[in-house]
Amino acid sequence: MEYKIGLIEGDGIGPEVVGEAKKVLDAIAKKYNHVFNYTKILMGGCSIDATGVPLTDEAIETAKKQDAILMGSIGGNTSTSPWYKLAPELRPEAGLLKIRKALNLFANLRPAYLYKELKKACPLREDIVESGFDLMIMRELTGGLYFGKRYTKEVDGVKTATDTLTYNENEIRRIAIRAFDIAMKRNKKVTSVDKANVLDSSRLWRCVVNDVAKDYPEVEYEHMLVDNAAMQLVKDPKQFDVILTENMFGDILSDEASMITGSIGMLSSASLNDTKFGLYEPSGGSAPDIAGKGIANPIATILSAAMMLRYSFDLDNEAKEIENAVQKVLEKGYRTIDIMPQDAENNSKNNVKITQVGTKEIGDLIVKEI
Amino acid sequence: MEYKIGLIEGDGIGPEVVGEAKKVLDAIAKKYNHVFNYTKILMGGCSIDATGVPLTDEAIETAKKQDAILMGSIGGNTSTSPWYKLAPELRPEAGLLKIRKALNLFANLRPAYLYKELKKACPLREDIVESGFDLMIMRELTGGLYFGKRYTKEVDGVKTATDTLTYNENEIRRIAIRAFDIAMKRNKKVTSVDKANVLDSSRLWRCVVNDVAKDYPEVEYEHMLVDNAAMQLVKDPKQFDVILTENMFGDILSDEASMITGSIGMLSSASLNDTKFGLYEPSGGSAPDIAGKGIANPIATILSAAMMLRYSFDLDNEAKEIENAVQKVLEKGYRTIDIMPQDAENNSKNNVKITQVGTKEIGDLIVKEI
Ligand SMILES: CC(C)[C@H](C(=O)O)[C@@H](O)C(=O)O
Ligand SMILES: CC(C)[C@H](C(=O)O)[C@@H](O)C(=O)O
Repeated sequence: MEYKIGLIEGDGIGPEVVGEAKKVLDAIAKKYNHVFNYTKILMGGCSIDATGVPLTDEAIETAKKQDAILMGSIGGNTSTSPWYKLAPELRPEAGLLKIRKALNLFANLRPAYLYKELKKACPLREDIVESGFDLMIMRELTGGLYFGKRYTKEVDGVKTATDTLTYNENEIRRIAIRAFDIAMKRNKKVTSVDKANVLDSSRLWRCVVNDVAKDYPEVEYEHMLVDNAAMQLVKDPKQFDVILTENMFGDILSDEASMITGSIGMLSSASLNDTKFGLYEPSGGSAPDIAGKGIANPIATILSAAMMLRYSFDLDNEAKEIENAVQKVLEKGYRTIDIMPQDAENNSKNNVKITQVGTKEIGDLIVKEI
Repeated sequence: MEYKIGLIEGDGIGPEVVGEAKKVLDAIAKKYNHVFNYTKILMGGCSIDATGVPLTDEAIETAKKQDAILMGSIGGNTSTSPWYKLAPELRPEAGLLKIRKALNLFANLRPAYLYKELKKACPLREDIVESGFDLMIMRELTGGLYFGKRYTKEVDGVKTATDTLTYNENEIRRIAIRAFDIAMKRNKKVTSVDKANVLDSSRLWRCVVNDVAKDYPEVEYEHMLVDNAAMQLVKDPKQFDVILTENMFGDILSDEASMITGSIGMLSSASLNDTKFGLYEPSGGSAPDIAGKGIANPIATILSAAMMLRYSFDLDNEAKEIENAVQKVLEKGYRTIDIMPQDAENNSKNNVKITQVGTKEIGDLIVKEI
């Protein structure tokens, strides 16, 4: 089969990690006789430099013609990069928000789980994560505070800024259905997170999710206030299966959850619309401080490519093959610097030597397993 | 001296923990020759039961006449309590929001620190918290999404809910000044948390805080995005001294921070206006499941009373006396059930036996140290 893949390399370590993911995809294409046609799409700081804006309308049109998009990361150092001297709507991140909205990518899936091999990197106490954890955050991505009306004006001579948080029942219903659908394929539990003791939007959220839940009698279902959820993630992450929440709460909780795994360089994410189309990207940022040094961890991007094969192309075997290859490379003891154990010397348990490698090397090692 | 203290016992474990704090205050009064005049004020579920509303206007007037207020906790089980069948503005929590606004309690101070004696309860890995941490969240408490316009209506036949997040420069300035003032008395570092890459209110926030920072050249000062802050709290809490943030972000981050200490039953909080007046309360909730069992931890409330003596009455020695008394009782090995180590048997290190005690007993033990 032939597939059209848009590549958004972006800024910072983006081009390096996307490069490795492409190598892995090419290996899959060869082995399984697929054709992957890549089209590069400019977005973020690199697009500002080339065109003056973080995402052109032509880039959006090109994106729409693809079967899926694989992205690296966008943005730079917010204190030193000239991109952050620009008006907010011209900064790199504005490109990301624009493409989410333009392609209607309302469902953001961010898995967070503990790698057995990387347990030591987990910041939580050993007895809390002994039996591991594996959760999926389903974050609404095209509504709420991110896309509400906003304005700054003088009120009685005092500068006043306003953002609005709006959700309608249709927006809530479609993301809730996604969450319950995915829970059915996982451990059949949904925790819907809101702030219903304060917000009208949360009360509507709760109401609509209650309604959707009725169609999934097999799924265990609970509500949790966002402040409590921020606590429970630290206290006992294994209580969660699917966490369903709105855009801003999802931004905060998904980052907290990925940090709790201790291996953010390993976590992929998908942003989907209501067709098979999706944008796939690593959970980590653009890490401008290590860009170009050849030490960034490309695994999150490689696993994002696997997610793309599974969700957008229905290529389950091929996705599994990539995931297994990553697993084998980890088992053999290869690590990029971000996931190196601090006591590497003493860490060669089960006779596996732990070896630090660079971006390209670990990419090559993963390709070799395919 | 004579002081007028309003007592809001509230719901759940509220009356029990306030009772112990009152015992401790009485001991201080006796030793230091103060007169504390207590006036009980109904708020929360108990007020609903008695008056139909969570806070009456008379209760607010009574509250205004006090020099400070000590509160237990309000609210019940949100799934089973009849209070949660009422309209949102009639539920227990509405009383809390109403008193914050009516008394202009805009500055919410929530300290989070690690007790040496309770290190084992900390959910973070030992090497992360080896040298402890001690941070203070300065949360804006009377603005933002909590007090913006909200409404639910049909738009083209689709139910739509809206909340608004508004801040003006005066609201931001006064809380920022509080944060820098307190940083000057602590470790001289302020981390201002916002979401300036998305929100207009955050961009105004950043702008005004930058301005305030100029008056505090000695204070190290940085901005952090809220999603990153949620990560950094888990990764390395000791990097923080004072975290300054708006209402909703503060709600989420302060709960995350208190959970990270592992001893939420030990953490006090203060809500202040621009006079010496303040409302003091434990960081934990009303814990309806253990109410009346005599096992709740009153220490957070006792330490809230100490905060009251310090911030509202300028009684620094008396405050210190209470804090030392708590410290001694911990050193002697007394614990309520929530802070009992799991392996109490093996935990009697330095020849200190760890003994589990109830609410009243630990209150008595603390009184005895005064
Ligand atoms: C870059 C930023 C606008 C973005 C967001 O807040 O959604 C990022 O934090 C994310 O989670 O993808
Ligand atoms: C009860 C609730 C309205 C309140 C809040 O969100 O402010 C509580 O969580 C708190 O932090 O004091």
